[in-house]
Amino acid sequence: MHKALTLPTYQTTIASDWVDFNGHLRDGYYMVLFSYGVDGFMDHIGLDAAGRQESGHSMFTLEAHIHYLHEVKRGTPVEVRTQLLAHDAKRVHLALGLYAQGQSQLLAFSEQILLNVDMAGPRGSAFVPAVAARVQAVQALHAGLAWPQYVGHVIALPAASTAATGTTATP
Amino acid sequence: MHKALTLPTYQTTIASDWVDFNGHLRDGYYMVLFSYGVDGFMDHIGLDAAGRQESGHSMFTLEAHIHYLHEVKRGTPVEVRTQLLAHDAKRVHLALGLYAQGQSQLLAFSEQILLNVDMAGPRGSAFVPAVAARVQAVQALHAGLAWPQYVGHVIALPAASTAATGTTATP
Repeated sequence: MHKALTLPTYQTTIASDWVDFNGHLRDGYYMVLFSYGVDGFMDHIGLDAAGRQESGHSMFTLEAHIHYLHEVKRGTPVEVRTQLLAHDAKRVHLALGLYAQGQSQLLAFSEQILLNVDMAGPRGSAFVPAVAARVQAVQALHAGLAWPQYVGHVIALPAASTAATGTTATP
Repeated sequence: MHKALTLPTYQTTIASDWVDFNGHLRDGYYMVLFSYGVDGFMDHIGLDAAGRQESGHSMFTLEAHIHYLHEVKRGTPVEVRTQLLAHDAKRVHLALGLYAQGQSQLLAFSEQILLNVDMAGPRGSAFVPAVAARVQAVQALHAGLAWPQYVGHVIALPAASTAATGTTATP
């Protein structure tokens, strides 16, 4: 298996108005960075502004999970690196990592499911052929990558983990 | 069981710069709204600005999961309603719902784990007694509430759900 999270899809510097009362990037803004990272992935598969205009399709995020691993300070240059975990005819399952530019320490991790949408509905719809071909090409490139350890995690307090997996009644 | 998500912890109106190229609240900004909803919960348990100053403690988000259920348009007055699912000596497991103000349709759902932190370290630390008492009081109030159906969900493509639960090899 090879190193996960290899495709850079967004770069920026942490802005002052993204920082909370603890002096760190506010939790919600990590997801804004990942959102722009997803836009970069959409560009990569031909759903940039021109591709959206031509196809009449876009993508909507259905569900996301985020792990906050390290603080990120104001002014830090950061980047989002993306991995296509899986896809079907109209959905992608993405892994996204936040890093300081040029560094290997994972600062935050997100996995997300996105749905391709025909904006004329709007309704969920299969990728147009040109986009489907790009998705399949990325999938072929990423087929040998390890899946990050955070994929598929269920949120629970440590002592409540058995309840969360359904082996005992929830409170 | 009683109705979930009863405690309003944040109200605002969707700002123009939170809206994406589809004309809806950008996915990342839902999490910014939930972040302010968490701040409101912190206020409620005595970790407002004065409480953080006095105790030297604050809370860090460890992990979050979000389900995007409906589009939210620019200018919509919204609110976050919060439910304490569980807690231990230094963590809370929160459920948060986004609603249009005065409406009952759930627009987005998030569950989050937050850790109480002694900022002198910073290190994870038990709640100070006054905060612990407030957490226990909220837990007593919320003990009879149903858990929203989205709690504990594992992200996966529909066809990949068996792989995600570990019963088959990952690709």
